[in-house]
Amino acid sequence: MDKRLHDRKFVRTFFTTPTAEQGDDDSAKKLRGAIGLRGMQAPDVWVPDNEDATAPNMRDEGARNIAEVVAEGGAEFPGEIHPRVVWHRDSPETRYKGFQHMLEIADPENGAVENIDGFVIPEVGDLDDWKKADEFITIVENEHGLEEGSLAMSVIIESGTAELAMGDLREEMGKASNNLQRLFLLVDGEVDYTKDMRAITPTGALPEWKELRHNTSRAASAAGLIAVDGPFDNIRDVEGYHDRITANNAMGMLGIWSLTPGQVVEANKAPLPPADGYWTIDADGRTVELTEADGVQVYSGDRVELEEVDGGYELEVGADEQFLESEEELAGALLDVLDYVPSMDDIVDSMEEFEAAKEAGRGAIAITQAATVRIDDVEVDVSSDRMWDEATYQAMQTPITLFQDVYHNRPDQHDDLAELYSEDVVERAIQVGN
Amino acid sequence: MDKRLHDRKFVRTFFTTPTAEQGDDDSAKKLRGAIGLRGMQAPDVWVPDNEDATAPNMRDEGARNIAEVVAEGGAEFPGEIHPRVVWHRDSPETRYKGFQHMLEIADPENGAVENIDGFVIPEVGDLDDWKKADEFITIVENEHGLEEGSLAMSVIIESGTAELAMGDLREEMGKASNNLQRLFLLVDGEVDYTKDMRAITPTGALPEWKELRHNTSRAASAAGLIAVDGPFDNIRDVEGYHDRITANNAMGMLGIWSLTPGQVVEANKAPLPPADGYWTIDADGRTVELTEADGVQVYSGDRVELEEVDGGYELEVGADEQFLESEEELAGALLDVLDYVPSMDDIVDSMEEFEAAKEAGRGAIAITQAATVRIDDVEVDVSSDRMWDEATYQAMQTPITLFQDVYHNRPDQHDDLAELYSEDVVERAIQVGN
Amino acid sequence: MDKRLHDRKFVRTFFTTPTAEQGDDDSAKKLRGAIGLRGMQAPDVWVPDNEDATAPNMRDEGARNIAEVVAEGGAEFPGEIHPRVVWHRDSPETRYKGFQHMLEIADPENGAVENIDGFVIPEVGDLDDWKKADEFITIVENEHGLEEGSLAMSVIIESGTAELAMGDLREEMGKASNNLQRLFLLVDGEVDYTKDMRAITPTGALPEWKELRHNTSRAASAAGLIAVDGPFDNIRDVEGYHDRITANNAMGMLGIWSLTPGQVVEANKAPLPPADGYWTIDADGRTVELTEADGVQVYSGDRVELEEVDGGYELEVGADEQFLESEEELAGALLDVLDYVPSMDDIVDSMEEFEAAKEAGRGAIAITQAATVRIDDVEVDVSSDRMWDEATYQAMQTPITLFQDVYHNRPDQHDDLAELYSEDVVERAIQVGN
Repeated sequence: MDKRLHDRKFVRTFFTTPTAEQGDDDSAKKLRGAIGLRGMQAPDVWVPDNEDATAPNMRDEGARNIAEVVAEGGAEFPGEIHPRVVWHRDSPETRYKGFQHMLEIADPENGAVENIDGFVIPEVGDLDDWKKADEFITIVENEHGLEEGSLAMSVIIESGTAELAMGDLREEMGKASNNLQRLFLLVDGEVDYTKDMRAITPTGALPEWKELRHNTSRAASAAGLIAVDGPFDNIRDVEGYHDRITANNAMGMLGIWSLTPGQVVEANKAPLPPADGYWTIDADGRTVELTEADGVQVYSGDRVELEEVDGGYELEVGADEQFLESEEELAGALLDVLDYVPSMDDIVDSMEEFEAAKEAGRGAIAITQAATVRIDDVEVDVSSDRMWDEATYQAMQTPITLFQDVYHNRPDQHDDLAELYSEDVVERAIQVGN
Repeated sequence: MDKRLHDRKFVRTFFTTPTAEQGDDDSAKKLRGAIGLRGMQAPDVWVPDNEDATAPNMRDEGARNIAEVVAEGGAEFPGEIHPRVVWHRDSPETRYKGFQHMLEIADPENGAVENIDGFVIPEVGDLDDWKKADEFITIVENEHGLEEGSLAMSVIIESGTAELAMGDLREEMGKASNNLQRLFLLVDGEVDYTKDMRAITPTGALPEWKELRHNTSRAASAAGLIAVDGPFDNIRDVEGYHDRITANNAMGMLGIWSLTPGQVVEANKAPLPPADGYWTIDADGRTVELTEADGVQVYSGDRVELEEVDGGYELEVGADEQFLESEEELAGALLDVLDYVPSMDDIVDSMEEFEAAKEAGRGAIAITQAATVRIDDVEVDVSSDRMWDEATYQAMQTPITLFQDVYHNRPDQHDDLAELYSEDVVERAIQVGN
Repeated sequence: MDKRLHDRKFVRTFFTTPTAEQGDDDSAKKLRGAIGLRGMQAPDVWVPDNEDATAPNMRDEGARNIAEVVAEGGAEFPGEIHPRVVWHRDSPETRYKGFQHMLEIADPENGAVENIDGFVIPEVGDLDDWKKADEFITIVENEHGLEEGSLAMSVIIESGTAELAMGDLREEMGKASNNLQRLFLLVDGEVDYTKDMRAITPTGALPEWKELRHNTSRAASAAGLIAVDGPFDNIRDVEGYHDRITANNAMGMLGIWSLTPGQVVEANKAPLPPADGYWTIDADGRTVELTEADGVQVYSGDRVELEEVDGGYELEVGADEQFLESEEELAGALLDVLDYVPSMDDIVDSMEEFEAAKEAGRGAIAITQAATVRIDDVEVDVSSDRMWDEATYQAMQTPITLFQDVYHNRPDQHDDLAELYSEDVVERAIQVGN
């Protein structure tokens, strides 16, 4: 059963589904729907949610439903399966209930355990509380003849206490008296965290909790785990969800909770490099994408103005005016506000170029991006150099390593990837850097 | 004396007063003034300040003044009383002086101790230093026949060392060799913290220290304490003080230092929900409150422009233009920039509605806010839904629990609250959720 | 050899130089150039870089070059010299290589060690890993007859694990089984940190890592060390480098990596107060410096507009309009957006004024800044008071203490400082506060 343990080095998506709902003929209807997801709609980690998403009086039935549905369809499901059970640092009753549900779900007689990759434990407190959950999972493994440590454990960080606990993980994980090496995901749960921190916002919107996300990402880095952000409630707001993922990725938090298959698609794609590179301009504090027309990068907003005048150029960004005496000076000023977002193809190119240079004994090379930019009918040629050394190479490799992890573990997404990037780019991207 | 220990679950205001000043007939004049404060002008925690606010050569007299003034007026004072004594992690002389002052102030012969709720210890270092202060308080209790642990201890966090120490509090507080369960407030002291961190700003303004405030709030959450922000020097700047409180509240830091009775009033009211709800619009990065006129929510600034044109609407927010084909599309676009700030009444309504739904077996309901919005003479009906489940309910409950704590502990503010919200709303707010 | 240990209380600049390059007659050419730097071009800490800046196959030669070049020119070099050797928390081979290089560089037979102040250890992990490096340095000292602890150790923080380790430094540094008191600089290395955290940004730009910088500064404060920020790659972008330093200083991180002598000059000057004070205005979110003309402070941009109208003034900041009935009201409104950046001279004045007041038994004084401000041809007299007490005094003293440390340790910069500030101001600045 070793295969279970941390096959995935990256998890983009954490998708929850209620385990039992009243009022339908089949209380497991949503589970049956979710386990049928494939391709970009299927998450990296699927979480039959026997906690908050399921009514308290339906959770015993929910545990049985999980076992039944995973027994039927788990082998074909393309992602990992980690049910969430009930748990609370302040309630022994809840903890015992969670233990019973794990015993039920993992019972080999129910036929599901081969495709259960682990459990998600919510509402954990300090590390002593995490160890109680770990111990119950050890007992479940022992009772059911599973290898010790074969079931992964993921936790939801939804208290200040749990946030602090993450700082000690690395030290505790190796100790002989626990099996915390089974830890897999550190998932932020901002709604309950907000309650625990007693935070108040005028509109009731969730605070940003940037420090929590940093600390979660850092703990994942220090303990070899994977950081996942909590749910984004406003399902309608696709752009907001995308922005949140971009902000998370810049902290090393590459996974996020998804509440709908639509969010799963968005979150599966967002951390991957774009199929086509593009230029952006910092238009007085707002990043605006340039549009390409006949090979020229065009800015057509009002926040940046450019005019050819006697003896030079006048460039106005917001309320800041500059006079530039030559096209060269103008190109320099524009480079301060322009940026290039490289495509998958660009990144692979640069990596290959650097590898060849290293082979030839050079430690650093300049990667050049050139473009013709048009603002208010003035066209300028710009060209920006970025130095790549070993450290740059390795830092830029992260999206490629993520892509390779996805390619390796999610054959069901090969078609989508080939359609997105072309077969050729995919082929080179899975080779580069190995 | 158990009653002393942490009656308050929330502290909005921490108000300091010099204990002895030269040049007046009565060196305790300011103390006598402060102990007479009532209602919104009276703080939740009053701090006769025998440290920085009082000249070093006046502090022995200051300690006597505290005892005298509290003996006279302490029983009638509506908030808690926690004198600040001298202390420094690097000076045994200062620490011994602080110990002597505590012995004096708490001496039953002086008649004040029944109304002394605890002491505030500034300039603490690592936890071993906190334990020295704790030990002195234990000795004070023992010498004066007080129950061990009956005097609370609050600390001022004004060094990087103390910030780090907060991370270990939860672990240390239960140990048999200390009485750290007496801890009550964690108060940031940003001026000295800035010195200790050796930070430099061009104007000499205090840095934001957002990470410090987060870490203080988190430590309070993990150890069952209350987080309080430091002094806001610019007394004239009421809006700035209010903004700081709003930012603090979004981190779970619901208390703040007050330097004047005016700041006390502001800080006592700021974390409570408004009496009337209102709409805001995100006008190109700035949040602007809409004004109500005949039931219509009106935006009258220049940053958002709306026009009815052939076949639809043109909406311009800052430099971003959108064309919207129908009123429905327009309403959707507006919802992206509109927000509703619920009143106390609204929050109580929503909580009651959710409680009824839960009673009826439903786990989630939609709370709807509708309004007619007018921008540049175009009127649009908008309606926004927010899902409430158990977690939302509990997170939204914080301002209500705060209100109930205030109502329970501060009878002297009942009239102010009734005037602010109406008797009826107050009545329902103190019932809901219990 | 005690003199080596932490003579410097402040380090502004950390300048790295490759130790050996192929293709030149003299592979140590860059080292010979750097050791000749003097005055503002010479860093506080010079780092012959036998790690990333030097090709792997040149590093043995690099170690010999360091010894040779420092033996020749080290005695005259005005800053401290701390070579960086190879190290990696995950590679015993790399660690042993670093040990061998340290043994070589510090061998008294090579004649360099008297002017080697310590070593820089990159890529450290948890504290047990830091202790391995510490132990190797202890052995180097013992083998070469140097006093134990005489060689400083600085580390590069480039992993989440190392970031967490900083939180435990204070506790570990006193223990008998290590010599961690030799620690000197905590240097952030954001490129490798970004890789370790697996962060992704669309353009490949480095994330801000504000939390890392805060935590580094805090650890330096708690353990008596000095915090230094990592390299700023865009050498062309002087303004960006300056802004980064300003942001760092507001966190207590007063040092920064420099990649060129030009960056050294900028970073040596940036944390010092300006020679001339100036006013700034918050022009709708952007801080703009006013220009002086005939003693009047003039704002000449478009973001703030001011007009005298019937019965008062109209002030428009961005899209916010205010009507003010009197010049007094106008001055009050302007003070909300105006700020004064004091010169070295101003700070010394204020400190002397406060010292005199304290001598006379007063604990707090008001420091006044007055100016005539002109906006759109309307002139207004404004005057702002700032309360100074002991805490303000001490917090404002940091740039002066920094200046005094520089003056004491860097005689080669005396001429530059006298030229910048005038002899008289320098003379007073080195006296004040002592």
